[in-house]
Formats: sequence, structure tokens, C-alpha cells
Amino acid sequence: MKGQRLSGDSGLALRTDLAVEEKERFPGDGGEIRGVSLREWFQDGREIKITEVRILDERGAKAMGKEKGIYLTMEARGFERKGEEAVKKLEDELATQIRRLIREGKGTDGKKGGKMPGSVLVVGLGNLYVTPDSLGPRVLQDLQVTRHYDGQYGEGFLKEHRMAAISGIAPGVMAQTGMETAEILKGVVEETRPELVIAIDALAARSVHRLGCTIQLTDTGIRPGSGVGNHRSGLTEEILGVPVLAIGVPTVVGAAAIVQDTIEAMVKALEMGKGTKGAGQYLNGLDPEEQYALIRELLEPEFGPMFVTPPDIEDRVKQLGKVIAQAIEIAFAG
Amino acid sequence: MKGQRLSGDSGLALRTDLAVEEKERFPGDGGEIRGVSLREWFQDGREIKITEVRILDERGAKAMGKEKGIYLTMEARGFERKGEEAVKKLEDELATQIRRLIREGKGTDGKKGGKMPGSVLVVGLGNLYVTPDSLGPRVLQDLQVTRHYDGQYGEGFLKEHRMAAISGIAPGVMAQTGMETAEILKGVVEETRPELVIAIDALAARSVHRLGCTIQLTDTGIRPGSGVGNHRSGLTEEILGVPVLAIGVPTVVGAAAIVQDTIEAMVKALEMGKGTKGAGQYLNGLDPEEQYALIRELLEPEFGPMFVTPPDIEDRVKQLGKVIAQAIEIAFAG
Amino acid sequence: MKGQRLSGDSGLALRTDLAVEEKERFPGDGGEIRGVSLREWFQDGREIKITEVRILDERGAKAMGKEKGIYLTMEARGFERKGEEAVKKLEDELATQIRRLIREGKGTDGKKGGKMPGSVLVVGLGNLYVTPDSLGPRVLQDLQVTRHYDGQYGEGFLKEHRMAAISGIAPGVMAQTGMETAEILKGVVEETRPELVIAIDALAARSVHRLGCTIQLTDTGIRPGSGVGNHRSGLTEEILGVPVLAIGVPTVVGAAAIVQDTIEAMVKALEMGKGTKGAGQYLNGLDPEEQYALIRELLEPEFGPMFVTPPDIEDRVKQLGKVIAQAIEIAFAG
Amino acid sequence: MKGQRLSGDSGLALRTDLAVEEKERFPGDGGEIRGVSLREWFQDGREIKITEVRILDERGAKAMGKEKGIYLTMEARGFERKGEEAVKKLEDELATQIRRLIREGKGTDGKKGGKMPGSVLVVGLGNLYVTPDSLGPRVLQDLQVTRHYDGQYGEGFLKEHRMAAISGIAPGVMAQTGMETAEILKGVVEETRPELVIAIDALAARSVHRLGCTIQLTDTGIRPGSGVGNHRSGLTEEILGVPVLAIGVPTVVGAAAIVQDTIEAMVKALEMGKGTKGAGQYLNGLDPEEQYALIRELLEPEFGPMFVTPPDIEDRVKQLGKVIAQAIEIAFAG
Repeated sequence: MKGQRLSGDSGLALRTDLAVEEKERFPGDGGEIRGVSLREWFQDGREIKITEVRILDERGAKAMGKEKGIYLTMEARGFERKGEEAVKKLEDELATQIRRLIREGKGTDGKKGGKMPGSVLVVGLGNLYVTPDSLGPRVLQDLQVTRHYDGQYGEGFLKEHRMAAISGIAPGVMAQTGMETAEILKGVVEETRPELVIAIDALAARSVHRLGCTIQLTDTGIRPGSGVGNHRSGLTEEILGVPVLAIGVPTVVGAAAIVQDTIEAMVKALEMGKGTKGAGQYLNGLDPEEQYALIRELLEPEFGPMFVTPPDIEDRVKQLGKVIAQAIEIAFAG
Repeated sequence: MKGQRLSGDSGLALRTDLAVEEKERFPGDGGEIRGVSLREWFQDGREIKITEVRILDERGAKAMGKEKGIYLTMEARGFERKGEEAVKKLEDELATQIRRLIREGKGTDGKKGGKMPGSVLVVGLGNLYVTPDSLGPRVLQDLQVTRHYDGQYGEGFLKEHRMAAISGIAPGVMAQTGMETAEILKGVVEETRPELVIAIDALAARSVHRLGCTIQLTDTGIRPGSGVGNHRSGLTEEILGVPVLAIGVPTVVGAAAIVQDTIEAMVKALEMGKGTKGAGQYLNGLDPEEQYALIRELLEPEFGPMFVTPPDIEDRVKQLGKVIAQAIEIAFAG
Repeated sequence: MKGQRLSGDSGLALRTDLAVEEKERFPGDGGEIRGVSLREWFQDGREIKITEVRILDERGAKAMGKEKGIYLTMEARGFERKGEEAVKKLEDELATQIRRLIREGKGTDGKKGGKMPGSVLVVGLGNLYVTPDSLGPRVLQDLQVTRHYDGQYGEGFLKEHRMAAISGIAPGVMAQTGMETAEILKGVVEETRPELVIAIDALAARSVHRLGCTIQLTDTGIRPGSGVGNHRSGLTEEILGVPVLAIGVPTVVGAAAIVQDTIEAMVKALEMGKGTKGAGQYLNGLDPEEQYALIRELLEPEFGPMFVTPPDIEDRVKQLGKVIAQAIEIAFAG
Repeated sequence: MKGQRLSGDSGLALRTDLAVEEKERFPGDGGEIRGVSLREWFQDGREIKITEVRILDERGAKAMGKEKGIYLTMEARGFERKGEEAVKKLEDELATQIRRLIREGKGTDGKKGGKMPGSVLVVGLGNLYVTPDSLGPRVLQDLQVTRHYDGQYGEGFLKEHRMAAISGIAPGVMAQTGMETAEILKGVVEETRPELVIAIDALAARSVHRLGCTIQLTDTGIRPGSGVGNHRSGLTEEILGVPVLAIGVPTVVGAAAIVQDTIEAMVKALEMGKGTKGAGQYLNGLDPEEQYALIRELLEPEFGPMFVTPPDIEDRVKQLGKVIAQAIEIAFAG
């Protein structure tokens, strides 16, 4: 565990792990992207905003740079200041969406006729000792596992009490274990045979406003290269042999993203106020991908791939860790 | 991880996990127990005392209540106050004994002609969040794993640098994972194929003086029911399919052991001083203040003013801390 | 902070910091002790038991070995397993008792006509890094202080919002600071002029069953020598110049107390069963295995399989964890 | 402690707490600034670079935006990867510089004829629970205080062993205590009468390369508004009545600084490569202060005053915390 690098020397032009932000790159309401459908609604008055992005086919997957599947985003800005009741509502809504995604998502549909699985392995990805990457292990701290109750209280206990067999593991990151997370989990899944894996992970976002108050659910599992600790290996049904539901919370924004936003604002300000052309025009001539590449090229030799994270991230990760643990327990209760 | 019990409702008359203490139960220097051999020596001047107990056959195993195998105990009382050099010497001596045990121990002898294995999985047993059971996970925090270097720096890197492939995992305890540690490790061992497992564990001792300054090494692996968290499942070559070297440090003594020692001292004191007109009668004759004073007089020179604290005290202190903070806020609101 | 001793080499025959347990030493319901009055009642159904011991005069003080004043004990066994509502009720009841004690207690009665003070300094005594002594600092972690709001949001803010000016400090223990807690607090009180000090502390109890589920309130402040970290200096109105309300939670029991209880039970069992031909003789007649079994039989139904662990176990586990990690790396190097 | 803001809504155009970086704003080697003298040298081969900035008079103070006094900066890039010996050398060099500054600095010169004080209060500023602001409290964790030895081992113990009376406190930040740090310390200093205060603090730097490997010493104390947690109140000889030596380590860089550097690089790249004028020219027309103000104006409404901190800051703060604690002990030994 000596090598606690938040991020390695990644070759990926990592922008965002949130499908909803990929969608925002496109003009208009995004309804025009072929192979992608979008739906938005509110819960708990207007406190929780839910966005569902469905990537329907390969065309959509290519446009979005994400796998085919369902991506749900729940945003609850400022929920942590609204007291226990707001937290409870977020837990309940998250539990509802977990159940819905399990029933409608690709892992279960057809095959299982939409029933909830009787056993689930909850995997807390990330590094407990690096705050912005600690969400996964923290969920495990708060989660009540149950799989061992049959052994402890007698065969049939879980069935009798209509409890799902919940097991959990925080496997650590490669710099701590020397092993790919997928290797560890393949072994554990083969040995303990859960029907479903739920993988919890910290994510990178594009917008600072989404940090610590947004939850993304997807039935596609974890794709390689996503997550805060960068070099995540993929955790998917193909690799593990069981469906993988991923729950993620964005906790960092790349410094390059912030620079880009600032420059954009700056160029606008300059052109409006000053009538200058030149650099402004030139920058505007670049498309956002080129702009971003230019900024990284200038920024990273100097600073490395630094991330920006809000000052209260410790509190937020703790609180959302509890919300997610609670929601999983509710989703699988009776 | 809600259920952080240091110990369950164990049916075992757990006395000590240390072979050297089992040996001390027998009168004389123990040389008389058939099927058991004993050797003692010192290193680093007289700073480190090493005791080797070899249980040679079934007769010895039965007498000792432990598996056939080699048990090395290293005692280094007060090493933590002797500065960096003493720590360094203990590290070096422990490294030497690890190498010796791997070469002579049952896992490797014959089969491997005493060579050091090229790959090892270090397993940190126990619960990070319960101090006396946290040794295993803490070792993992400090251990530099290397198995991923080939993937990271190019195939052949480890060989070229003559490094063993070290991997590591802290699987958590059953109340945290819902899974037997053996299940998790069987899967991981099958998937990642180390030649050797080194399992680190916190142990229960009989003598307070051995807490936190003694290290036991054994080639027998972890036997079921040992360790601080009581219900450890066994981790042995039979179960995992590779040799298991166990490294343990005693961190707790059962309260019953302390009571027994005190009573023994008390009975002796009473009988010597009083001519045995019945220690029971005598004790009843004392008023509670006198009784208490006598017990302290007997107990504290031996143990210091030790305190007993429940295994879940961490959780309780956290929770009552919140309750009190909340109550003060309420008391002073409006 | 290197010297993290849970307890020093105390000369005090420390039994219990709880007035309610001192009371239990006396036969009957204790109503007979002159100068002491006793009242018991329940709240929240029978979930919270409240005992009020009033030490009325010097005679009572001498009999009880405690200062003249009011001692409230709230016991809420198992509250932590009864869910949020039970916790909320305990908070509310504690708030009520804090208000009552402030209004009736010696600090305020007469002088302030029972009004709540407008400013309070909450002091978290103890050592954050030693779990059983960490209650005070943890309360401070959870407490919302307000005294700085006037400076932050404009003069008059607190008054306008009818908020008391709450400030807080966790001064650390003498081994961390080199200063008496009373020295630190005298300075802070003089400089910041609160009307009341509330001191939070971890206590030693006599009964294992009271650990972590009992709260004692008293208007006498902290008396010297009480608390878990033994050498507490006194914090009283005499020393600080403002009334001191103390809130304490027992987190440890002395090992001697447990030995005494076991011996008492043992002597009773022996005398009943054996016709007292001398318990000492009888005990000597048992072999050590039988002795140990007898002790466990008497001890564990009462206490569970409790363990004794030295106060500096955290440091020792950390250090030996590093030694073992290092030794493994050395053993497998080259 | 609920309100753990790394930074508040500061009105200050915070650039850097390092005098050496203020110096770098000026062209040339800075020798031309009136009222400021500069000296640079190396220790331990070229491993440790020491820069001494002396602000000699009001003119220098105004130019530098810092108080009159001595500012020593020690840079030891990559020392944490160079092993124990490099760490030891850094400790020794820091101890030497602490002694030199105490003897030459404004607190002691003249008045005390350059003798080392017999008593010192070490103050760990900042918030233990926010990693980049936790340096101060961590130093206190590693520091061996001695002031209580006379009380513990008998009057005259310190003198006899030629030990200084070291005391220490981590007072917490205003959001945790409701009190100004200066209020707390004024009280403690008055009550315990140390001859010198050493205040440890985390700082903001301008250059990412200085984070976690640079130590600044100054005899001017802590000036208001500096430090990571922004609203630090001043801690100076004027306020506390005893000389204040400040030891700081930069742990964050403002996001605005990074944006500015990127834009600067970008404008250069654009003008060289493209021959465009306009925005580039315009930006170049602004002086750095105006540029920085413009960037903050654009950046902060969107993001708040965010800070960038390296991924391994936790490790670095821990290690430098130990180095500083060790150096203080060495500086005051015999």
C-alpha cells in the first residue's frame, strides 16, 4: 500500500465517467443523437433530478464513447444540508432505482424475468486511504452483510426471513495487492457464486457542481480505464460471468477541465469586451476536443494529471457511502 | 462491517495460540514430552529470544493441542523503546527465520529442495477497525507488493531484477464480508497461483508480558478457532492447495487467564500466611474494601493497572459521542 | 503524543466514577445513608432508567467518596440496536436532563435563577487516539459550535436567532501537551468568558454491563483522579471560576474488579456445593484445566469472553505490523 | 467540527505564503528590490536548497507584501524517495536552521543575547481531518513534550537533564471551536508562560513543485489570512506577548494559479506558432496582477476558491510532520 497514487500516467484523454455529461457535449437536448434515448424527471418535489440515458446500439455507443446499456443519474444538490429526511428520501429513491435497473437492465432481463436475485456480492472498488477514491471501501464499512447468517443461525435462516444473501469485499487497488481487481473477483465469484455483482466506485466528472451529490447507476458494469484511480480493469458480465450493476459517485474533476472552462469564459469575455480577434478566434476555431488536447499538452508536462476535489469531499464521501449502503440493504430487503 | 465483534460466543476453551506457552504448561523444561522437541537461543546479544518447538508426531500433537509442525517464537521485550537499530535487527532476524522456515518447513521440504518460492501471496487476516485484531490488515498497509510490475514495466522485469512476485490481500472478517476467509482465498489462490501463502494474524496469549512484543512463525498455517477474532476458519495447505506459513503476534489475553493467575497467587498468599484454615472462609471474613485491596496488591505488580473494555467499544464511543453532541445542541437551542 | 498511556501508575484505589455504583455498595436500597438521597424512574417506556443520587452534605460526601452535588445516571442498555428512534429519544432525554441540571445544579441555582446560560464552553477531555479514552474529543467532532457566528455573520446574529454561543475545545492529555488540562482551560476561560463549562469525559465503572450504554451527569465538575486516563486534574467551579457540568460515559472496568467478582462467585459456588472444607484447599485439589474451566463457567455468563489488552496496543500493533512487512520484503529480496 | 471548509469565501487575492515565491515575481535575481536581501546555498551535497529572504525595512515589506523579518526556505525535492538517511539529514538541517533563526531572529536578538529559550510552546495550527490542512496537528502527534516531567519525576528533573520544557497544543480551527486561535493561545500562553511559541502551519504555494517538499521558517509569526484554512488570525509577538517562530509547509496551490500558468503557456504557444495577435497581445498587455485578477473573476463564480493538491499529499504531510517534530526535539536537546 505504499504506492498510493491517485492517478497514474494515463494515456487516456479522460473527460468524464458520467453518461449524462457525455450527452451534454451534444447541442440541443441531445434527442438528435441516433442510438441514444434520453429521459429526465424529478422526485421528492424537485429535490432529486433523475436522468436516464439509454445507449441503444453500436451507433449510440460510438457517439457517446460508452457501452450499450442504461445509465441513470440521480442529482441531489445540497441534500447534505437538508437534514435526515432528505437523506432518507435519497436512500429510498436510490433503492427504488437499484431494483428497477436490476429488473430492466441487461443482466437480468429475459433470463430472470425481472426477479430480484437471491444473492449479491457488493464490491467496494478504490483505495480507502485516498479520500476521493475511498467511496467503495466506505460503502463496505456501512453495509450489513448477511450471507453468513445461514451458517451462523442455522440453514434456512435467510429464506425464512426473506433475506437476500449479501456478501461484500473491498479488494484494494493494484498498487496495494499486486493483483488485478478482476483476478481477485473472478476467484471470489467462482468460489461463492453470487447471482449478481454490485460494484461501487468513485468517478471523475466534468463539472465541479456534480461532485459529491450525484449518483450514477448502470447495468454495463465497470469499463476499463474509468474511475478515480484511473487504471481500473473492467468488471463486466463477460469477465465475471454474472451481471454487474455499477454504482458510482463523481468525486474529482480533472484540472484540465477547469482550465478549459476558464479559457472559454476568458475568450468570450475578451471578444465581447475588446473586439480583439486573433487568439480568441483561433481558439474558437478549434473544436472542444482539440482545445482540450491543447490544454492537456500544455498543462500536464508541468503539473502531471492533477485532479481538483472540493474541500469537503471527506464528509461527502462518508455521507454518500452511507446512503448507498442503506439503499442496497433496502433494495434487497424482503 | 457493522458487526465488529472481537470475539464470538466461542465454545472453545481458548487458552493460547502460542506453542511456546503450551509447552510451559508442562513441568520441567518440557524435554520430557514425547513427540515434541524444544530448542532455545538468543540473537542480537540477549535482545531477541528464539524458541523453537517442533511437534514431531501425533503423540506430540495431542499433548500440545496443536498440529504437527515447526513453531518458532521470537520475543523482543521492550524493543520498541530501544530505537531504530533494535527495530532493524528484529526485522533482519525475522527475515532470516522466515527464510529458514520456508526452506525447512513442511510446505517446501522435499518438494522444493529448500528454494525460496518465486511468488507469494501475503494475507492480512483480521479487522482493521478493531485495534487488537488489526495486525494483518496493517501489515498489508506497509507491504510493498511487486506482482504487478511485469504488467507495469514490461514482461521479465521481476526476473531481471531478481524480485519475487509479492501480492497481498486483506480479505476482512466474516462479519464484514459474509464469506469465509477460506472461500475468498481459495478463489484468489486459484486465479493468481502463488507458490506460497503467508498469513498474518493477531493471536491470544496466556501471559500479558508477551503481548505486542512476540512473533510466532509456523509452517502449519492457521488452524480453525485460533486468532483474536475467534472463529477463524482454517487456512492450511490442505484447503488452499499451496503451503501456508503463518506469522502471528499475540495482542490479547483472556480475562479468565488473568483471574486464574490472581486466584492462584491469592490462594498461595493465604495459605502461606494463614495456615489454611480455609481460604474461602478467610476471604469471606474480609470486607469488600479489604478484598479489593488484596486483589490489587496481587494483581498489579504482575500486570499493571489493566483495564477490560468490550470489543465493540469503538462503535459505542462513536455513537454515544454523537448522542451527547446532539443533546448539547438541543439543550441550548432556542 | 508519543506517550499514549491509558492509565498511569495510579496510587488511587480507583473503583468507579459512577455515583450510582458507589450507592450499590451499600446494603438495601441505600435509603439509609445519611446525607444521601436517591430517586429512580424510567423514561421512554422502560427503555431509559434514570437514577438521581443527591449528596446533600459532608456526611454523605464522606460515605460516598464523592463531592456534594447532584449525580444523574441514565442507563439505556442495548439502545444502539433499537434503531434511530431510540437514539433520538435518548438524545432528547439527555437534553432535558442537561437543562434540568443546569437549572437546579449548584453552579446556577440562586445566582442565575435557573436561566440557561447564553454562552457555554464544551470541553472534550481524553485522548482521541486511545479508543476507550476518546469520548470527549469525539463529542467535539460532532458538535456544531456557534460562538463565531457573530463575527462571521454580523454582530447580533446569535441574539436574533436566539442561539447560545457554543464554543468547544479538545485540549488533549498531559502526555500530549505537557500541560495540565486545568492550566489550558483556565487560560481559555479567562480569555473567552463562557458562563458555563460542560466537560465530557470517559469514566471507569465497576460493572461491565454499564460500559458504553450509561451516561452520568453531575454539577460537581470533574474531580481529580477520575476518568479513564487516570491523572485527570480537577475541573471545578473553584478552579475555573465558572460552573462546570460534567457528562461522563463509562468505557472501562478495572481488571481487579472482574477478578473480585469472579472470586466472590467462586467462593459462593464452592461453599454451597462443597460444604466449605476450605475453598483454597478445594481449588488446590483441582488441576489447572479444571480450575480454568471453573473460572470460565463463572466468568463468561456474566461478562462474555472478554479480553484484556494493554493500553498501548495500538502503537505496538502499528510498529510490529511494519516490522513484519519489512521482514517479508527482506526475506524475498534477491 | 461539522463545518470543515478547506477555504472560506476569502476576499484576499491569495497567491503564495512563501516569501521565496514572492521574490520570484521580480525580474532578475531580485537583488534590485530595495529593502530586501537574498541569499541562496545548498546543504547535504545539493540535496537541500536553502534560500534566505530578509525583508529589511518598510519599503521591502511593501514590495513583498510580507512583514519585515527573516524568511528561510528549505527545499528538498524528492527527499521522501531517498531513504532514511536523507530524512535524517533534513531533520538535522532543519534543527540547525531553527536554532539559528531563534538566535538571530527578531524575537530573541538583542533581548536574549542569542540563547536558546528554556521553554517553548509548539502550536499545531489547522484541521486534522482535512489532509492538506493537517500538518500542524500531525506534528503534535509526533512531538515528545517534556514540560510535565518536573511534576512527574520531581522538581529539577528538566534542569538536571538539560532539557527544555516543551509543551504543545493543537487548538483546532474556528469552525471546530467557535473561538479565534489567538484567543485560545493568549489564554494558554498567559497561564503557562513559555518563552517562545513555535507555530506549525500548512501553506499555499504558487508552484506545484514546492508542495510537500518545502519548509519555510520565519521569525515574523503567522500573519492574518495566510495558511491553507484561509482565515487564520494572526499569531505574532504583538498579540501573544512572546516571540513566535513559524514553520510552514506548502500543501496546496490555488486553481487560479494553475490556470494562469496554462494560459501564459498557451498565449506563448499561440503567438509563436500562429502569428496571431489579438487576445495574446491583450493578455500580454496586462501585468500579472491584472491577469490573475481577471482569471479569478472568471474562475471563482463558477468553482469557488478551489485548491489543487497532489495525490500523495497524505503521505507527504505525514512524513514532513515527523521531520518537523524530530527537528524541534533535536533543536531543543541539550
